[in-house]
Parts: sequence; C-alpha cells; structure tokens
Amino acid sequence: MAEKITPRSQDFSEWYHDVVVQARLADYSPVKGCMVIRPNGYSIWENIQKYFNQRIETLGVDNAYFPLFIPESFLKKEAEHVEGFAPQCAVVTYAGAKDLEEKLVVRPTSETIINSMFAKWIQSYRDLPLLINQWANVVRWEMRTRLFLRTTEFLWQEGHTCHATLDEAEQFTRTILKLYQKFCEEVLAMPVLAGRKSDSEKFAGALRTYSIEAMMQDKKALQAGTSHNLTDNFAKAFETKFLDKDSTQKHVHQTSWGVSTRLIGGMVMVHSDDKGLVLPPMVAKNHVAIVPIFGKDGSAKEKILAVCEDLKEKLRALSVDTRMPYVVRTKIDTDETKMPGWKFHEYELIGIPIRVEIGPRDLEKGQLVYVRRDNGEKKMIPLAEAPTKILEELKSLQKDLLERARKHRDENTFEVGTLDEFKIKIDNPGGFFKSGWCGNRACEEKLKNETKSTIRCLILDDQFEIVKTKVACMICGKAGPSQLAIYARSY
Amino acid sequence: MAEKITPRSQDFSEWYHDVVVQARLADYSPVKGCMVIRPNGYSIWENIQKYFNQRIETLGVDNAYFPLFIPESFLKKEAEHVEGFAPQCAVVTYAGAKDLEEKLVVRPTSETIINSMFAKWIQSYRDLPLLINQWANVVRWEMRTRLFLRTTEFLWQEGHTCHATLDEAEQFTRTILKLYQKFCEEVLAMPVLAGRKSDSEKFAGALRTYSIEAMMQDKKALQAGTSHNLTDNFAKAFETKFLDKDSTQKHVHQTSWGVSTRLIGGMVMVHSDDKGLVLPPMVAKNHVAIVPIFGKDGSAKEKILAVCEDLKEKLRALSVDTRMPYVVRTKIDTDETKMPGWKFHEYELIGIPIRVEIGPRDLEKGQLVYVRRDNGEKKMIPLAEAPTKILEELKSLQKDLLERARKHRDENTFEVGTLDEFKIKIDNPGGFFKSGWCGNRACEEKLKNETKSTIRCLILDDQFEIVKTKVACMICGKAGPSQLAIYARSY
Repeated sequence: MAEKITPRSQDFSEWYHDVVVQARLADYSPVKGCMVIRPNGYSIWENIQKYFNQRIETLGVDNAYFPLFIPESFLKKEAEHVEGFAPQCAVVTYAGAKDLEEKLVVRPTSETIINSMFAKWIQSYRDLPLLINQWANVVRWEMRTRLFLRTTEFLWQEGHTCHATLDEAEQFTRTILKLYQKFCEEVLAMPVLAGRKSDSEKFAGALRTYSIEAMMQDKKALQAGTSHNLTDNFAKAFETKFLDKDSTQKHVHQTSWGVSTRLIGGMVMVHSDDKGLVLPPMVAKNHVAIVPIFGKDGSAKEKILAVCEDLKEKLRALSVDTRMPYVVRTKIDTDETKMPGWKFHEYELIGIPIRVEIGPRDLEKGQLVYVRRDNGEKKMIPLAEAPTKILEELKSLQKDLLERARKHRDENTFEVGTLDEFKIKIDNPGGFFKSGWCGNRACEEKLKNETKSTIRCLILDDQFEIVKTKVACMICGKAGPSQLAIYARSY
Repeated sequence: MAEKITPRSQDFSEWYHDVVVQARLADYSPVKGCMVIRPNGYSIWENIQKYFNQRIETLGVDNAYFPLFIPESFLKKEAEHVEGFAPQCAVVTYAGAKDLEEKLVVRPTSETIINSMFAKWIQSYRDLPLLINQWANVVRWEMRTRLFLRTTEFLWQEGHTCHATLDEAEQFTRTILKLYQKFCEEVLAMPVLAGRKSDSEKFAGALRTYSIEAMMQDKKALQAGTSHNLTDNFAKAFETKFLDKDSTQKHVHQTSWGVSTRLIGGMVMVHSDDKGLVLPPMVAKNHVAIVPIFGKDGSAKEKILAVCEDLKEKLRALSVDTRMPYVVRTKIDTDETKMPGWKFHEYELIGIPIRVEIGPRDLEKGQLVYVRRDNGEKKMIPLAEAPTKILEELKSLQKDLLERARKHRDENTFEVGTLDEFKIKIDNPGGFFKSGWCGNRACEEKLKNETKSTIRCLILDDQFEIVKTKVACMICGKAGPSQLAIYARSY
C-alpha cells in the first residue's frame, strides 16, 4: 500500500509533492534540479503533444529540430537576451577530450541558433510567413527546484515564426495566446487568464510578452505559457532579412512562444485531491479501469471476463464511431494477487477517470457499478446502457473539471483598493486581486519586497489592449487612470 | 528552380548530400557536427516514432524521460563503458555562473543514469520485468560528420529493460532485434540483416550486441540499429537488485537497444534516385500531391478544384475505412505563381509518392493522370476508379521499394574464399561478402588496416546462434570450422 498523502489543508506543498511522487508521475534524479518523468507522467506529456500538434498544424506551423548547443557568441548578439539568460546557463567547455575553442551553451531557449538558420533560409517575401515549432529539452540553472514546476532541465515546445511586418507578428503572437488559452481550457480543463506582462517581466529580447495565468487550489498563480512579440530585435542581431515586394531588403518580424512540462504540475495543482491524482480524460492514458470481482468460488470468472472484454471493445468502438477526440482505452485488471480494495485505491491514486466493478451478483442482475474519480459518485447501470453512459460521464467529467476550476478561480478573485488592504487579504483569504497600477517599476519592486507578490499580468480588452481603469495605483496610490492588473503570489 | 543533383554514378556521397539538402530534410548548423532537421525530415522522424511506439507498446514497453546530464562519476562506475565513451563526451563544467563541483557529461547514452533510478524503483521480483523506452537527444563528439549518418548530436530511442534472469534478458534482446528487422522492412521498406557483432564491436559494457545491417545503393553497409544484452554489468555497478521468490537478493539482468535519426539517412540511400527523394508511403507526410491545371482561359477552374477536393476527401475516407496503417494525406497545389513543370519537379525532389494531374481535357473525359514517384510510370484512369486505384498504388509502392532493395542486396551478396579475392572484389563489384572468421581479433585488425572493411555481423541461425561454417577464415586462412561472417565496407 502506498504511503499516506499529506492532506491539502495541512500542507499544500507537501500534498503536491506526495501526489506527484506517489502517482509515479515524476521522481527526483541524482542530478541536482533534474527530474525523471515516469511513464504515468510522460503519457500525459505525449497527449499534450498530440493535441497541441493538431492545433498548430491548422495554423500551418511545421515541427523541426535545432541543435542543443548554442555558441556563446550567438547568445551575446542580442544584448538584453544574454543579460537575461547568462546567469542560468550550463556551459560545455570540454568535448572530444579537449578544451573547446568556443564554449557551447546548452540551450536555455533557441531564438539565437534558430535565427542563424532563418537568416540562411529566408530570401524573399515569398518565404514568409515561416512558422516553425520545436519539441525539445532546455536547461536553465535553478537554485530552488520543484518537480514539473521548476526544474533545471525541462521539456517544452518553442514556436518561432517570421513575418513581413510588425503588425503580422503582433497578430500571430495574439493568435498563439488565444490558442494557449483554449488549449489549457479544452484539453487540461485548466482555466487561464490571458494577459500581458509588465515590461520588467517580459522575455529577454522581446518587445512585449503575453502570458496565461492559472489559479491553483491554494489560490496562488502559475504562469502556464508565454507568447512573445520579438519585433526585429533578433532579426537585426542575425541579419535575418528578406527582399520585399517593393524590392528593398527588410528585417523580418518575429514571434516566439512556449509551454512546458510545467503544464503537468499546474494541472495536478488545479484538479487533484487528497486521494491522489485527478486527470482530465483528454490527457489520461487509460480512461476506464475495470476491476472484475470473481467472488469466493470463482465460478462466474469466465463469464465476468467475457463481459469485461465486451465492454472494453464497445467503449473503444463507440468512442471512434462518435468521433470523440480520443479513442477510449480501458484497462481490465485481472491480477488475482491484489485485493479489489487495493486496486480501487491504486486507480484513485493514479487518477483513472472512471472505475468499473463487476461481480457475480452484478452479472446475475445484468448490471455494473461505476465510480467517477472526480466526485466519487458510485452508480449502478444495466450492462446494455454502460458504453453510452460511460462515454457521457467521461465528457461530463472533462467539462465539470473546467467548470469547478473556473468557479474556484472566480470566487477567489477580488477587487482591492490599497496596498494595506492587499497585504491583509493576500494572506487571508488569498487569491487574485484586481486593481490599478501606475506603470512605475518602483511600485513593482515595492510590491515584491513588501508582500512577496507580483503583477501576474495586465488585463486585456477584446482588442488585446491593456484595460485602463479609473482606480488609483494599488501600490503608490497615485490617482488613475491606471492599468488594470492582477496581483497575486505565484509559483 | 533547385540546383542540379549530382548523379549517383558520378559521386554517391555528393548525391546523398544533394538529396538531403535539396529535399530540405536537413541542413548544416553553425555548431560543428550538429545538424538541423527541417520539417520535411522531421515529419519522417515523427512517423518513425508513431509506428515504433505502436510496436513497443504491444510488448508492454512504456515511454519515460531521464536527465540530459550524467554525473561524471556515474560513467566511471562501469569500467568498459567509460573507456568506450569518454573520448566522445561533451562535458559541462560551468553552470549557474560558477564552476561545478562535479562535472556533468551530456548523455552519450543513458544506461548509467537510468540504472541509478532502476535501483530505487525495483524492490521485488514483482517489479520485473521493467520495460522502459526514452526518446531523446544524445551527444557523441565526432570528428567527421555527415547529415543523419553521423552527427555530434542525434535523436534516438533508447530502450532499457530489467529482467529476473540472464535468459529472459537474452530473449528480450532478441525480441527487439526481430522487432527492429520487421520495423525497417515494413515501415522503411529497408531490408536488413540481423546478426551479432564481434566482441570488438560490441557496446561498451555489454555481454553481447546484435545489430541490423542494411545495404545502401553504393553497396556499402549501414548499421541501422543495435540491441544489447547487458547481463548484470550495470546492475552490479549500480546495485540494481531485487528480492527474488526464493527470498534472496539478486542483481537484475538488463538489455538496452536503440535506433536513431540515422535511419532516415539509410532510407534515403536505399530508395532515392537522381531526381531526389523516394519515400515509402508509410513515412511520407503527404502521400498524394494533386496539381490542377486550369488551362489558358481558366474557365474550368471551379470544376477542377471541386474534383480535386472530392478526390482528396475520398482518399482520406477510403484509407480510414479500409484500415490502412496511415490516413492518406493529399496536398492540392493551387499556387498559380508556379508552373506545373516546376511543381512536378518539386514533388519528385521531395518524394511525394503519387502525383496527380487534372486539366480541362481530363475533366471532359472524366479521367485523371497519375505518376508513381518510384518508377515514374504515368497512367490515366477514370475519376470514379481513382480513389481505389491510388490507394492500391500506394500499397504496391511500399511493397515494391522493399522488394527492389532486397533484390539489390541479394544480387550484391557474394561468397568469397580468400583475403586476396576479397581485396579485389570489395572494390569491384563491391557488396556484402560471406565467408568464415576464425574468431581472432588480430584478423579483424588486419582486415581493417588492409581493406578498410569490417566484419559487419556474424550470421545467426533460427535459434540466434552464430552459424558455424566449414570454410576457412577469410583473413588468416586457418581451416574451419569458423563463424559465418558478413564482410563489407560501411558508413
């Protein structure tokens, strides 16, 4: 039997750690700050990749792969970029049994190496837009790490695009921001606010950065993805130019954008409970676990197994016929060395969305029992209705997780007037706090120093412009109009 | 228009380079020895991953992810292993703005870091077999590199399994060897010999290594994958133990096995021709390219486009209904800035398996024209028959590529008696040469020094035992019985 999971109410951070480790999503490795993603966690990442690829393909984005190593001189070509990343770089100085002439940085992000190729591939306006994505590992040296949320090495996708004009680049940056928002909501059932980062929080080398911010169950924020308008900053550094229709050479305008294995950590902190992992069916490897119960004499074993196999196949076939976004996968657990109670606990721990039980008495009555992982509700239904009903439950479960998380977020989002009020409320009840910001960096610093909180993002209107509000700056009290900001503590 | 491809007859090596670069599969990067895999190449890799995952899943192998970095001390725990890999390692000595206490090697392969986790996860015989696979980038510092075939960084899968007994490990090593062979033949249409490596060529740290060897069009061999029985070498170094049924602690027995992006290079060298890439449909991103020809007045444009869209959808639907291993993808090329001749050339260059042309006269006659990429045959068929016929052609194309490659290999495999005979024949006609080997390492050295050839593998019988032959050792002439070996030059 697994160890006990620390309840959320007792220690949220310990609870998170217990769920991730006991559900065997990930483990600590002997390399400082690096994690091992175990099969239960990696299958979630594979599903994220599958759905994400489907979505970016409709935008015309192609996957490719660029080198792990970046010559040190490349990183230095964009001044802000190197300043932002140099302190976190891991550097290869020795290879093939001798010292390298030029040191190689293990990529913390790939704008520079990719621009060196774009400069070679792009000649004319006919080559634009160029829309590339890469699935890769990246390394950023971190002092304090936490499984999935902040690790020295992590897996991510990084999109890199080139456009003829600044306006096109801006539009694409926003298109991706919307895609990220929909992806988190529709696939991970994780509601996110899409907003803009303040200048002090933008990507090193970007004109502007947008982000999606999710609220965890402890009411802290998690930055779940970013989309940057790089304008021609990197294009100038790498001479990435094209011959435009007007026969003049111009620098391309670029975007870059990424989400990482951090999404898995966020999803855990949004949906899971004191019994273990709760997974949206969209990213679950197995959707249904059937626990056949053979009874004392075992005489109904053959028949029960046949019913299980039949149900498994019907669930699969019906999910295909009704064009569900995934083919329903069912695990039939016939291991007779384990007790049903052990199995129930195990499937709760690892987050199988629907658990089914079939015993000899159920067989006689032509029924089965199923339990939804999210709400623990136990229901009996006739066998004939089971395939349709279980698929409906999977769909409801996906929808309910999103609604529950949205409700939690909305109920814990407050308006606040002054820094003194914020200082009290950020501790109790905690949450997201909406208020004004004068735009002054000194205010951001003061906020951070005095409350360990930050501006998570600046709220956008339908036109992606920062919302102006009449209220005063929450920090310095300077009278409005100010920018509408979300203040919170974060991971 | 693209540059001219060097004909194979003129310079095979230049031809390979031209095909890879002009078909935009890969490109050189500014980092010495590292390549960029462009979308046309990366989509092949994604298809390889998809089919490979399907096959290992049926064996119960799960995907996971382990750290990029390996502490230097880990590599040293297995004596042969460090001796084999140390000269090729890239080493991080500096990270997070300071010198590291322990240097970190960028993984050249992951036996050591994975064993450190296996030792933690495995307690009892109930935890066995443990079957894990990882898709990852690895780095081996190489002096001479060639796109896909030998690069400093490459992408691969590395499988790592633990078993209770040596015999089980040996069986699994062989199961994977057979899987590799079938995979190369059924997916890449690339016939391979499955054999065993001589001791001097085995993996550093293995008891024995099996490999698959393919013959390229220039009659040289390419090692396309390896499967190693590691016995308990790494388990002893890392104390990877389990409590067996007999209540004693035992070391696990392990296997490891890998194929890499090298497969793409092999496939190019087996199937492609002087016009460019020839791709087996199984790994093609687009299977069919339709070039509508609107004629001078363009009056039939709407109708022609409707026929194209209809054909595209019918191909897709029929491939799903008939359960082809892939969903047929069709590209309709409506770009009116390019001439049809340019498009034909382009689709030949990038290896689209079937090209379709539909013009106003075809429309009147209710027919279309299609061309198979592999044999260039041009045929006319009634529109109504097109979907069925085109899918049949895709299946034939896949089959024919394999048969053609097998015929080429078999026609260029010879028996040979003496080293003098071999020295002449390896230059002309070239090929694979079967003969005996006494088993002496000195003979291997002599062979390498005098002929730049190697023993590619030792031939196995149905029981996976090395075939014993009565013929003398080809190198020293020592009378048999000897081991039956394949001698060849290789990449």
